[in-house]
Amino acid sequence: MTLDEAQQLDASDPLAFARAQFQVPEGVIYLDGNSLGALPKAAPDALAQTQRQWAEDLIGSWNKHGWIDWPTRIAAKLSPIVGAKPSELLIADSTTVCLFKLLAAAVRARPDRRKIITQEASFPTDLYAAQGLCDMLGLQLEAVPAEAVLAAIDGDTAAVSLTHVDYKSAAIYDTRRINEAAHAADALVVWDLCHSAGAIGLDLDGTGCDLAVGCGYKYLNGGPGAPAFIYVAEALQEELINPLQGWMGHAEPFAFVDEYQPADGILKFLTGTPSILAMAALDTGLGTFDGIAMADVEAKSRKLSQLFVDEVEARCGNEVQLASPRDPAQRGSHVVFAHPEGYAVMQALIARGVIGDFRAPDLMRFGFTPLYTRYADVVRAAEILADILSSREWDQARFKTRAKVT
Amino acid sequence: MTLDEAQQLDASDPLAFARAQFQVPEGVIYLDGNSLGALPKAAPDALAQTQRQWAEDLIGSWNKHGWIDWPTRIAAKLSPIVGAKPSELLIADSTTVCLFKLLAAAVRARPDRRKIITQEASFPTDLYAAQGLCDMLGLQLEAVPAEAVLAAIDGDTAAVSLTHVDYKSAAIYDTRRINEAAHAADALVVWDLCHSAGAIGLDLDGTGCDLAVGCGYKYLNGGPGAPAFIYVAEALQEELINPLQGWMGHAEPFAFVDEYQPADGILKFLTGTPSILAMAALDTGLGTFDGIAMADVEAKSRKLSQLFVDEVEARCGNEVQLASPRDPAQRGSHVVFAHPEGYAVMQALIARGVIGDFRAPDLMRFGFTPLYTRYADVVRAAEILADILSSREWDQARFKTRAKVT
Repeated sequence: MTLDEAQQLDASDPLAFARAQFQVPEGVIYLDGNSLGALPKAAPDALAQTQRQWAEDLIGSWNKHGWIDWPTRIAAKLSPIVGAKPSELLIADSTTVCLFKLLAAAVRARPDRRKIITQEASFPTDLYAAQGLCDMLGLQLEAVPAEAVLAAIDGDTAAVSLTHVDYKSAAIYDTRRINEAAHAADALVVWDLCHSAGAIGLDLDGTGCDLAVGCGYKYLNGGPGAPAFIYVAEALQEELINPLQGWMGHAEPFAFVDEYQPADGILKFLTGTPSILAMAALDTGLGTFDGIAMADVEAKSRKLSQLFVDEVEARCGNEVQLASPRDPAQRGSHVVFAHPEGYAVMQALIARGVIGDFRAPDLMRFGFTPLYTRYADVVRAAEILADILSSREWDQARFKTRAKVT
Repeated sequence: MTLDEAQQLDASDPLAFARAQFQVPEGVIYLDGNSLGALPKAAPDALAQTQRQWAEDLIGSWNKHGWIDWPTRIAAKLSPIVGAKPSELLIADSTTVCLFKLLAAAVRARPDRRKIITQEASFPTDLYAAQGLCDMLGLQLEAVPAEAVLAAIDGDTAAVSLTHVDYKSAAIYDTRRINEAAHAADALVVWDLCHSAGAIGLDLDGTGCDLAVGCGYKYLNGGPGAPAFIYVAEALQEELINPLQGWMGHAEPFAFVDEYQPADGILKFLTGTPSILAMAALDTGLGTFDGIAMADVEAKSRKLSQLFVDEVEARCGNEVQLASPRDPAQRGSHVVFAHPEGYAVMQALIARGVIGDFRAPDLMRFGFTPLYTRYADVVRAAEILADILSSREWDQARFKTRAKVT
């Protein structure tokens, strides 16, 4: 596809208007919104307003400006994005802390069972959180290859913990199929939606999901380290216990009583006092989905990623190998290509303004955010990649030197 | 003391300059900085700058702007405030989540012991977190009156969990005495410093503290729901395990390996990705202590609270009863007075611009923040309280109606 043809696709893109909601730097093709979403233009004003509330109304702001309700008010905006009732959603903590909470809640609901099933090579923090929980409770974490998950679920399985869209390959699990298998064994499933929420259509309620967590700072554009979200299916809310008990999850937080009495519904999954400034930014990130149908987002996601695969394969030949599922319906909104010098190639791309990221050992990851990635960006990125590969522009010491991340 | 005399005290106050760092509304006497500190004037610019970094450098900001180091870089500013080495301090999560982490770490370091000792009527979230942990691990939470804590520590005690300054009465524990008693029984102590950090002098290292958590949004002025801080004494850092394992606490977060390998030192107590926006605000809150000696802060704190006690007792007689320790050295930086209609009286005070808060059943709480409370504020607040009591201005339905906080 030529750049002109891509620009024609952009001109007729029903989601083209959404890009104006973001501040994306000139000259940059940002294909890493799945690591950190772009700044919503509404964020600076929202943060300034929140600071004015803080300055002028001080402690009274918790009631006057409704801060106390933000974890549920803002979470409600996720309802159409993930296919859940507002009353099943909550903004809280970080993804890892939320995952710990829900996994602990799940295994404590199955006290006679000793295993958590998960996928090996899953996003590391998920494995670490689950392992930490298992160590604490004397349970066993069984990490198996993706294709072995279904067979691993048995009568000793308390919970299944899976990332819906793989952070490397973008491979998607069939939530319904896993949920049904787990439920047949009377186990609960905790989904990590970090690389799916805001990128592809989700129907948590319709596919029989139990529990899920997701990230506010990727496709939801909530800002660096934005709070996470929690989903607890209505049918489980009364039964499950939040192991990280705190005053914000109490039935009467301001009664200051010694005995913990969990709040009704989803609120019991709150723990400490949430950051209002962080939620103000997340609110504007979720606001970028106002009036946008996730079916359109998913459709554009598939077109963008497939266009990239087609263009890269047409332009780069065998120099790179697709390491994501070839069927777009089996992928999330990013794709990875393997190259033996993937790290250096990615650094060369970044130097040319094409920002993706690298995942060891050899994967170049390119994320497509339907709200602000244009078809022209995709074609241009493929052109630049082809140019870097054919010129061996990546073969310079400066691209091969890895910065030490402490 | 007359208002004139108080203004003379302000004129010679060595900390008077610090008030200019804050935006405090005109006409308000804010005596609730121990619930939510005032806005540092530096916060809006810091948040705007952080948003520019996000907008312009996107994912690259984690390295380019050093975001990855903020949990320790910002925590280092606490070093002179709490009397600890920078390498013993970390910004993370919420106070409740941090308390859960450290309590769990403590009890897992004493696996043959079954008890956590705490104080009854302590700040509720501390009790809830400890109870939740005990329920999960089959331990016993023993909540005793303050004067019974020392006697309760025995050979079956894994950890002692105490709030250093009581959130109601402002009574202070002698950290050294409790630490020594606990250590004599080979138990660890976890201190909650929410109502002391930034208000009175602390010497965590010098008094033999093991573990502590504290709040960023009270005397540290970090903004509503600011992240909390963690203190882990150097000698314990290698031994203790963070039960909420996550990628940010991994030795190599970006190696993306399946096995958890804790980072060295304090970093292992990180869990998920921290909010950069929330930390940017907290950074400016901690910045308000730059160049300020905690000995001066504590000295002013004592003078302010004692002046309030003296003026209220002189002006209001027996209408209110001091419910804080009478010895200023035994108090933190707030005082409470009991009044049978304390709720209504506090509402009448707030209507007159004197903002304190109410704690059931009958306590009016007044917090003195040495960086921005003036002696004249204290005298004026006592005058207004006396006026409200003598006029029975509080005896109106509008002051007696409690808003429902959900």
